[in-house]
Amino acid sequence: MKKFKNCMGAALLTLPMLFTSTVMAQELKKPTLEDLIPGGATYRYAENKWYQWYGDFAYLELGIDKVEGTWMNGKHFSVISLEEVNSLLGKEQLGKISSLYSAVFLNSFDEKAGKALSKAEYPTLMLVNTGKNRVLINWAKKSIIWKQERTKEAANEDWNSKSRNLAYTINNNLLVVTGDGITTQVTNEPEGIVCGQSVHRNEFGIQKGTFWSPDGNLLAFYRMDESMVAQYPLVDITARIGKVNNVRYPMAGMTSHKVTVGIYNPETKKTVFLQAGDPTDRYFTNISWAPDGKSLYLIELNRDQNHAKLCQYNAETGSQMRVLIEETHPKYVEPQHSIIFLPWDKSKFIYQSQWSGYNHLYLCDLAANTKEQLSPAGVEKLSPEGGKLTARVALKALTSGNWLVQNILGFNLSSREVIINSTEVTPLQSNIFGVDIKTGKRHLIGKRDATHTADLSGSGKYLIDRYSSPTIPRVISICDTKGEVKETTLLQAKDPYQGYVMPTFETGTIKAADGVTDLYYRITKPADFDPNKKYPVIVYVYGGPHAQVVTGGWQNGARGWDVYMANKGYIMFSLDNRGSENRGLSFENVTFRHLGIEEGKDQVKGIEFLKSLPYIDGNRIGVHGWSFGGHMTTALVLRYPEIFKVGVAGGPVIDWSYYEVMYGERYMDTPQSNPEGYKECNLKNLAGNLKGHLLIIHDDQDDTCVPQHTLSFMKACIDAHTYPDLFIYPTHKHNVAGKDRVHLHEKITRYFEDNL
Amino acid sequence: MKKFKNCMGAALLTLPMLFTSTVMAQELKKPTLEDLIPGGATYRYAENKWYQWYGDFAYLELGIDKVEGTWMNGKHFSVISLEEVNSLLGKEQLGKISSLYSAVFLNSFDEKAGKALSKAEYPTLMLVNTGKNRVLINWAKKSIIWKQERTKEAANEDWNSKSRNLAYTINNNLLVVTGDGITTQVTNEPEGIVCGQSVHRNEFGIQKGTFWSPDGNLLAFYRMDESMVAQYPLVDITARIGKVNNVRYPMAGMTSHKVTVGIYNPETKKTVFLQAGDPTDRYFTNISWAPDGKSLYLIELNRDQNHAKLCQYNAETGSQMRVLIEETHPKYVEPQHSIIFLPWDKSKFIYQSQWSGYNHLYLCDLAANTKEQLSPAGVEKLSPEGGKLTARVALKALTSGNWLVQNILGFNLSSREVIINSTEVTPLQSNIFGVDIKTGKRHLIGKRDATHTADLSGSGKYLIDRYSSPTIPRVISICDTKGEVKETTLLQAKDPYQGYVMPTFETGTIKAADGVTDLYYRITKPADFDPNKKYPVIVYVYGGPHAQVVTGGWQNGARGWDVYMANKGYIMFSLDNRGSENRGLSFENVTFRHLGIEEGKDQVKGIEFLKSLPYIDGNRIGVHGWSFGGHMTTALVLRYPEIFKVGVAGGPVIDWSYYEVMYGERYMDTPQSNPEGYKECNLKNLAGNLKGHLLIIHDDQDDTCVPQHTLSFMKACIDAHTYPDLFIYPTHKHNVAGKDRVHLHEKITRYFEDNL
Repeated sequence: MKKFKNCMGAALLTLPMLFTSTVMAQELKKPTLEDLIPGGATYRYAENKWYQWYGDFAYLELGIDKVEGTWMNGKHFSVISLEEVNSLLGKEQLGKISSLYSAVFLNSFDEKAGKALSKAEYPTLMLVNTGKNRVLINWAKKSIIWKQERTKEAANEDWNSKSRNLAYTINNNLLVVTGDGITTQVTNEPEGIVCGQSVHRNEFGIQKGTFWSPDGNLLAFYRMDESMVAQYPLVDITARIGKVNNVRYPMAGMTSHKVTVGIYNPETKKTVFLQAGDPTDRYFTNISWAPDGKSLYLIELNRDQNHAKLCQYNAETGSQMRVLIEETHPKYVEPQHSIIFLPWDKSKFIYQSQWSGYNHLYLCDLAANTKEQLSPAGVEKLSPEGGKLTARVALKALTSGNWLVQNILGFNLSSREVIINSTEVTPLQSNIFGVDIKTGKRHLIGKRDATHTADLSGSGKYLIDRYSSPTIPRVISICDTKGEVKETTLLQAKDPYQGYVMPTFETGTIKAADGVTDLYYRITKPADFDPNKKYPVIVYVYGGPHAQVVTGGWQNGARGWDVYMANKGYIMFSLDNRGSENRGLSFENVTFRHLGIEEGKDQVKGIEFLKSLPYIDGNRIGVHGWSFGGHMTTALVLRYPEIFKVGVAGGPVIDWSYYEVMYGERYMDTPQSNPEGYKECNLKNLAGNLKGHLLIIHDDQDDTCVPQHTLSFMKACIDAHTYPDLFIYPTHKHNVAGKDRVHLHEKITRYFEDNL
Repeated sequence: MKKFKNCMGAALLTLPMLFTSTVMAQELKKPTLEDLIPGGATYRYAENKWYQWYGDFAYLELGIDKVEGTWMNGKHFSVISLEEVNSLLGKEQLGKISSLYSAVFLNSFDEKAGKALSKAEYPTLMLVNTGKNRVLINWAKKSIIWKQERTKEAANEDWNSKSRNLAYTINNNLLVVTGDGITTQVTNEPEGIVCGQSVHRNEFGIQKGTFWSPDGNLLAFYRMDESMVAQYPLVDITARIGKVNNVRYPMAGMTSHKVTVGIYNPETKKTVFLQAGDPTDRYFTNISWAPDGKSLYLIELNRDQNHAKLCQYNAETGSQMRVLIEETHPKYVEPQHSIIFLPWDKSKFIYQSQWSGYNHLYLCDLAANTKEQLSPAGVEKLSPEGGKLTARVALKALTSGNWLVQNILGFNLSSREVIINSTEVTPLQSNIFGVDIKTGKRHLIGKRDATHTADLSGSGKYLIDRYSSPTIPRVISICDTKGEVKETTLLQAKDPYQGYVMPTFETGTIKAADGVTDLYYRITKPADFDPNKKYPVIVYVYGGPHAQVVTGGWQNGARGWDVYMANKGYIMFSLDNRGSENRGLSFENVTFRHLGIEEGKDQVKGIEFLKSLPYIDGNRIGVHGWSFGGHMTTALVLRYPEIFKVGVAGGPVIDWSYYEVMYGERYMDTPQSNPEGYKECNLKNLAGNLKGHLLIIHDDQDDTCVPQHTLSFMKACIDAHTYPDLFIYPTHKHNVAGKDRVHLHEKITRYFEDNL
């Protein structure tokens, strides 16, 4: 934490040099919303480039019309041109492509026996997609080596580079076409049963519905029976006569869908289903294959979400082989990471758990699991919060501490390290570390005072590192994952708003409402800030789990609209309250069974801090947020009407009983088991408190937070004789994307200008 | 017209005496919206009383707990008390009633042989409804003479006093219970086919779906097959998970429902259907029975609504007997009145037609119809507009002139007159006239300078006259329908806003945009009006057919909200443009195929008039209206952005192609046959013109003007980068009724206060 503060302080000191002085500001132009908002006609992206690896030997830069390579010694070479690709495709009448950006160069960690491949062994293959065909090209030899016709209606395509089998869906069913071109309809289910697609509303880290075995010869897939789930009707007003789009939406406490996992064998054309018992009120998450493709691992969770089990199933028979790890917690367990086997030792895998209070890595050893061997400390292990971990496999903590592992990027095969993203440097950043599998010792990779994402090279020797910091919009560089921190810079993006008036960004910490916890804030001040003036403030808030709005990235995570409003003379403020991301389990789960209450108290601490500043006009405080932030905005305006004069809430949760089962019940339990919590957090019950100006915006196709939230709140306000404002964005889902996002922000801006 | 102006002038001269002076106003209190808006907690109704006739002998005053009679000589008598009724009901365990307001005293024009019944012959019967039972009580003898159990789910109950048969519906089907208590399911149709209910979306004067023959022994009923009609989904957000209410809503140019007419005989339990041929794209309207109950008359209209036929059908066989009258018109024919037979001569009936340009009465003589006799002037008769009337029955105009008959109240059996409402005195009033059937001579009944409704006594000798005028909130009096204008006043309601600050109301005429036609306006000025000040103006507009907002009634038809806003310092203005009601056919149909255009030009004339007044602030002009008035409001703000700074439109038609077939195609034809008109009148095409502030309000259960209108307009504005405001009233239909109407008007008020 101390390090972070120093780092921020240094960054702030350098700001006056990077940003313009008051005098200069007059010569600069103010960016418009079209310049500042993604989707705007003149939106100013930070410069970017696209790279992929060719083993450890070279990195490839993908352009529209060519791909160029650079050997690790710095020498350049030509890979292939768009013209060459289209010429090859044209000869076989396979269609054409318009750009090389979307080409995929085959490159993976799954190297032979967990060891780096030699250049001679390494494939020189790229996959392109013409719309009509999927084509594998040997870019070194400039030849087509394989092709596969595509189906127009196909969605959720999942292609395996080894078997070249493709899984895809048409409507609610799953199909497979094998590498040699034989198509099979794997499922034939009626409407209401969905196969091969993501389930459980994308919670628990689930993003897809098909999982090829390592060799691509078996396909695990989700089957979700949601025929028993109530349908929420969204009306499409663009049809000649308005038409219903029904969404199967299980609301908290109501009947939910039933998920099972099948394994399809394209050779036998047979499917076995995992014998997991009655799927009612159970979640099947984090599917992964054993390296030998003979068994499947998944983490199963009960509906109450307080008991998770890592299970292994026989891929041939579907029978359960064993339960390796169990976790329980008095509040909730939230498995979000599949297990990952070590490439060089198929008897060991990495399991991730928040059990200690922070997400950390545990090395599990199947070979040491002779009987019911338990490690590191007996049958059960209790965390300070009462979380219980029961391991039936040898288990060793690889990382620990009051910071968390965010992500496993891969492995360095030669140094036998796992490469991770973590918050160890500061919770505002994601830094990359190499962790020695044997000793657990770790070392930083890349620049310390920046936040990183990365792509590892073939055997994990290098990475293409993308980072930003408060003053750096984007740098792309090559790093060696071992040894000293040194980098070869590929791109140093210019400030996209050079020549424009820009505000200043500052971050710091205040104490949460518990008096103990540090919370990070960001304050954005107009370029011509005058400490002797009084400024109105707008708080931008999210406040819910799985997100953070104050970061150590470019402009500290400030959004284009913060810039716009600061340029109009507002102080913009954001605070990541307890309940938000990257601060560990107890920081998050303090909100359990009463979402919005503690979060609001922390936001009020932010207001108290603001009011302590001499340049803040405490009578002109507004708040804006979307989704959970829409809930927060509405809740703050209603619970603290003496503080918040104006609010603009987008797609808000108003009543948690209208929210879906997976996310909602994790934090709120069910309306049946937590009636007081649901009542306390139901903003309809506070409708009579509305005093200031509150605009609620909802999308008419919002299938995440259905329009019923906002419309029922309108009714509650009408009943309570209060006067909110309303706007609806037709055809949009759970936010306003594309060009209309500029309209949205103009609408929001006008509301604050008219009322604050 | 001249008379009206004089009359209004006189009324205005008296206003300063009736209303308060500036000095006094300060001592009075201002009425709140709760006082002024129907549905408000303290809404101030003008005093009222409820009367029914006992033949020509006495009028009965219905109260909560007693009914008292007054003989025509002025002597009072007691009829029955609530206690007596409930005691009678209690003895037979038939339930109880809580008030006598809803009792029905049997009294009809269908007197014996068209002659007045003597007192000895006259029934002393009253019908009460306990919820569980329908009970007929002899109030003179204080005895129950008949009872019938009610069905809980019954709707659309239609009871015949002669046969005591009851028709009713359960869901979409029709049932009949006979006077002796035998229930029969008349129809047994699946969802999508509706029997015994109003059809054609209540256009063409249709208000119900069952029609008992004069003796109550045969039941004509509508059967509407709407299974082929597209369903508009209205979402009920009060359900635990939002639920669709589907409404079969045929939109202009789309497939419409098919209506047939059945005749059910409770004795034989058989139904015959009128043999009218293929019902596709035809309207069957204005059903009435022949006096002998052997045939049925109706007016049939083609989908294009330019060709109407008065047809007679055999009630026993369903076969068509003859087509008596046909009308065509280059624009549209709109039959709205059933034929009515003379009570004393069953060979003559009165037919109403706008053929001459104004709705008038025509006496038709079936007895004179020897062959294809044509009257008054040959086979076909062309109106100045090209309307053609073809009569195959002897036909004589009973009324004529540049005014119109609004309603037939009934007949005076002894003087052989038909008693009507008409606009003859002024289009702002509805006056009552007696028209001699033989000579056509007519004479005024009741006060000239007032607008009237009335209930005729048993044989039409008297009427209970209810009237109001700009300065009279309500008078109820007894009039003799023959001879001199004299009245016995039963109630002279007090000004309900006595002791409150009230504005002044003035009316007058200006020329329409055609430079010729007189249009009536109303201007409402604050009580403390100062001609040296500049006032903002709000125009309240409707502007569509079948309605008039400037009247000769109480406060010239001004609404409570006009009063409220005038008290806040706004000048309130309304103008009945061409296209509105009570001014005849060509005044109305000038808007044909381009609704909103001419109407808007006339409204602009109103603005020009306002701007000519020295006390009007021409930079602060707002406009408000609902439904057609919502269309007008939106259209005015978009077509004349330089004039209208603020608009509040409720439930607007935005695109006539989203409106229903019956009303929409009458005025606009179909989108296929009038693409230019639909384009020109589609306000989405003008979304880019929005400059001022426009709030559109819609109800989420609006099944008259579906929410698609407003939501698609929002999308059009988003696409055009303009910024309307929006509000939605959940659970309401095509306006906001009940207590929420106060909220609505507070919402509207705030919008004008914030923006005008």
